[in-house]
Amino acid sequence: MSGMVKKNYTRPIDFKNGRIDMGHGAGGRSSAQLIEELFVAAFDNEWLRQGNDGASLSLPAGRLVMATDAHVVSPLFFPGGDIGCLSVHGTINDVAMMGATPLYLSASFILEEGFPLAELKRIIESMAAASREAGVPIVTGDTKVVERGKGDGVFISTTGIGVVAPGIDIDGAYARPGDAILVSGHIGSHGVAIMSQRESLAFETEILSDTAALHGLVAAMLAAVPAVHVLRDPTRGGVATTLNEIAKQSGVGMLLDEAAIPVLPQVEAACEFLGLDPLYVANEGKLLAICAEQDAEQLLAAMRAHPLGADAARIGTVIEDAHGFVQMKTRFGGRRVVDWLSGEQLPRIC
Amino acid sequence: MSGMVKKNYTRPIDFKNGRIDMGHGAGGRSSAQLIEELFVAAFDNEWLRQGNDGASLSLPAGRLVMATDAHVVSPLFFPGGDIGCLSVHGTINDVAMMGATPLYLSASFILEEGFPLAELKRIIESMAAASREAGVPIVTGDTKVVERGKGDGVFISTTGIGVVAPGIDIDGAYARPGDAILVSGHIGSHGVAIMSQRESLAFETEILSDTAALHGLVAAMLAAVPAVHVLRDPTRGGVATTLNEIAKQSGVGMLLDEAAIPVLPQVEAACEFLGLDPLYVANEGKLLAICAEQDAEQLLAAMRAHPLGADAARIGTVIEDAHGFVQMKTRFGGRRVVDWLSGEQLPRIC
Repeated sequence: MSGMVKKNYTRPIDFKNGRIDMGHGAGGRSSAQLIEELFVAAFDNEWLRQGNDGASLSLPAGRLVMATDAHVVSPLFFPGGDIGCLSVHGTINDVAMMGATPLYLSASFILEEGFPLAELKRIIESMAAASREAGVPIVTGDTKVVERGKGDGVFISTTGIGVVAPGIDIDGAYARPGDAILVSGHIGSHGVAIMSQRESLAFETEILSDTAALHGLVAAMLAAVPAVHVLRDPTRGGVATTLNEIAKQSGVGMLLDEAAIPVLPQVEAACEFLGLDPLYVANEGKLLAICAEQDAEQLLAAMRAHPLGADAARIGTVIEDAHGFVQMKTRFGGRRVVDWLSGEQLPRIC
Repeated sequence: MSGMVKKNYTRPIDFKNGRIDMGHGAGGRSSAQLIEELFVAAFDNEWLRQGNDGASLSLPAGRLVMATDAHVVSPLFFPGGDIGCLSVHGTINDVAMMGATPLYLSASFILEEGFPLAELKRIIESMAAASREAGVPIVTGDTKVVERGKGDGVFISTTGIGVVAPGIDIDGAYARPGDAILVSGHIGSHGVAIMSQRESLAFETEILSDTAALHGLVAAMLAAVPAVHVLRDPTRGGVATTLNEIAKQSGVGMLLDEAAIPVLPQVEAACEFLGLDPLYVANEGKLLAICAEQDAEQLLAAMRAHPLGADAARIGTVIEDAHGFVQMKTRFGGRRVVDWLSGEQLPRIC
């Protein structure tokens, strides 16, 4: 994101009726103006103001964590959020799920020629607000423009770095038989919010995306139980796929209790209507935590004491299983295997 | 890039005739298979094999640098390179231009439905080779798929982090009147290679992109002259735009000597044919360096001793100028102002 030094531009950017053109991505004067008057103005921090091609940062001691996410959600604006705040939350959450305190973000934008500048401004301001609220600045970035019909409005890739405090050691491979499986709240809201918007469905109660930055919740959890084994946010593929990933990484099985899995009634109804299983629907503000049985109550209490974990619940137990199956005790008392998401249940959900 | 643990997949991926489908981006089994059998296999390192949503890294002491680049180059394959190696080189170079040793990369992919897997494999293998050669591993990533007509084959965003050794302090704001301006070699090759491919032009001598990772050259330069003031790679917008950026950041003017600027004869001829000015054409394996006059000879010698700086030259001098103009003494003895790139000379050049 170079060229961010104050210059005098001959024409102001028309943020009301203007549109992205190829020149905004060519690296010249018009790129510099867009970056300065939109991105640097909104993200407003010392690193961007320096106008170098990268950011020079200071870090506390500790192991470093790096995570990245491409965001291609469609539609760009949805009930409860937009691609801007989502791209901040998603990457902060990936860093936090490694037990790290997220410190800095980078953002790269691929804009489609003809995209309305007013919408871009809304997205950037939403990103800036999410970054400010989370206390994680966007310190460097890049912007490219592709021709009309070669993109889809805006794609945003964000990368986050953070530091793990000494004594914290979290990994998808650390689930052990006997461990408790917790979820931080009601599942499925993000995916259903997107789908209802996409299908122009209006449900009686509006369903909002749960998009949120979870690093505050994680900090509260680790303060209460530093020995948490696994943290992961069940985004694409939902709780079912995420637990299958962890089961494979750890070489264990899992037994879930269907009745214990929190789903809002309106999300359950919408899922039925849309032919979706909430277990496979993406979340953007929920986490799964796995910890030793003796820590479960304390961890659950810490989660419930945080606004983003108020509806946390214990939903199952890690069991021995060389095949790494995730099973579920159904509401009717039977058992079924909860497999990986196999197809494309919800494309472009994040 | 989660779900990278060995699983048994029912069908092998058809890397010869297969194509990207929406399921490859949905986060389920087919995403996991693509990541495991293509990305993790090619990039092959401990962090990706761990299969978490991020990478846990160790870092030597020093200031941290973070830089990011979105790559949307068209065509994806061009003489001398492809989007894969370009996306590795581009971000390594942004980190190196801050005076840092690049240590880790992340990569996020936006794939278009229907994109041939054989081409994706070529690109990933080129990235892997570039990363191996540079000694900078790709430690985490993400893959999304968009519908046919909503992308353009492959977009790759890479983010790099690195560490600045104590005593090194490089910044675009550090150019001082009297400083020497050096370039590491012939300019304009990347842009002309792309344009000739795009326009299906065949010149007598094939013009190859100069795409290369410059951190080795930078290390050699800083070993010789730790007090380098400014480093920057003249990518989009070329040498002219990059020098204008630095002039503004530092609040100085520049006086270039046209006769001293190295341009290969075939690049000069192609530029004439295409109506381009090599000063505005993107480079992907060149750098500009600015240092004190008394260090210039030693720095130039260090550059010339490195294979990527063999044709390095001194091209000008920093002068006092409150307006921050970049001027050039032309071959005919006149002077002209070298302005910023103002339009979209070469869209999607990187």
